Amino acid sequence: MTKTVDGRRARGDVTRALVAREAAMTATVSGLDSITVGGLAAATGVSKSGILTVFGSRENIQVAAVAAARRIFRDAVVAPAWGAMPGGDRLVALLDAWLTYQREEVFTGGCFITATSVEYGHRDGPVAESVRRLKREWLDLLAADLAAAGHPDPQDGAFRIDALLAGASTMRQLFGDDAELDRGHRLAAEVVAERRRPRRKH
Amino acid sequence: MTKTVDGRRARGDVTRALVAREAAMTATVSGLDSITVGGLAAATGVSKSGILTVFGSRENIQVAAVAAARRIFRDAVVAPAWGAMPGGDRLVALLDAWLTYQREEVFTGGCFITATSVEYGHRDGPVAESVRRLKREWLDLLAADLAAAGHPDPQDGAFRIDALLAGASTMRQLFGDDAELDRGHRLAAEVVAERRRPRRKH
Repeated sequence: MTKTVDGRRARGDVTRALVAREAAMTATVSGLDSITVGGLAAATGVSKSGILTVFGSRENIQVAAVAAARRIFRDAVVAPAWGAMPGGDRLVALLDAWLTYQREEVFTGGCFITATSVEYGHRDGPVAESVRRLKREWLDLLAADLAAAGHPDPQDGAFRIDALLAGASTMRQLFGDDAELDRGHRLAAEVVAERRRPRRKH
Repeated sequence: MTKTVDGRRARGDVTRALVAREAAMTATVSGLDSITVGGLAAATGVSKSGILTVFGSRENIQVAAVAAARRIFRDAVVAPAWGAMPGGDRLVALLDAWLTYQREEVFTGGCFITATSVEYGHRDGPVAESVRRLKREWLDLLAADLAAAGHPDPQDGAFRIDALLAGASTMRQLFGDDAELDRGHRLAAEVVAERRRPRRKH
């Protein structure tokens, strides 16, 4: 391999990361469907032809946006908690990191998973599959730590924590009040704190 | 007023209702932003000029879509529960009607409030304000009945029920499994069943 090819590849990687990240941000503001090659070119300074050379299609950009969002969420929420012991301690650390991630508006338009789950939930194809995998991965992570923490029902618990956090993100976006984030965080922490004791079942 | 004017007004009302309802359905599938006069004309058989004569602008159509969705939700979820006693009985009836509304796919693309809250949450303007009023009205209704039922924290309870139902709707859209609706319904019913007893606060 020549240095020229290495250089081209490196530039391609930088372009790919820059454009995918911008696409992820756009998706939280106005949806994955609002992503256009022209819009990304204007926002990043990369030419339209340069973007299409790297990605090939708009659909590939959308899939790359989901992958970029996954990395952003991993770095902002999962990584800071990964030093804690699996189980209750790690869940508390995850919730704390989630609160910081929301307060600092890591994504321009609120939670990426919440926004794209609603937008792409009922669709087929590679973009929707990427969104589904992201949601499943997050639920599995919560359920595994709830199980390690001795939660009476890890699957229900993961569903509830996810719903409370998504609800908090939506409410903050709607009403502009950070107290909604604190409420979601507190209610999710109550789910984490539940230990094996009888719960009313219907 | 002449019969001709009455007839024109009546036709205008029918057109308005037909187009607003179609716009509400479209919003649940691909968002309020995906509403176009051309698309609505194709779906309803009303001409583009006829639609613009009645509504004046695309933004007015979006606001009318939210109002139409409010009526659809009122008829499908609130009205069937309104015969029950305010408080716990009415909340149980609301949750049952919500489950039917979801199972019967009253909206083509899942819950209207969930979809539009995420799409328009962070925006300004009359469409976003309509969406905010809809969400607030629903939360107030839940909180009032929780208070009447003696719930220990009606505001938190309303937030939790709303989050669980929105989460269930999103999960069903994502994974195509009606069991997610049953889970959301059951977990929301557990919130309703909570009575005044100490809850862990952080």
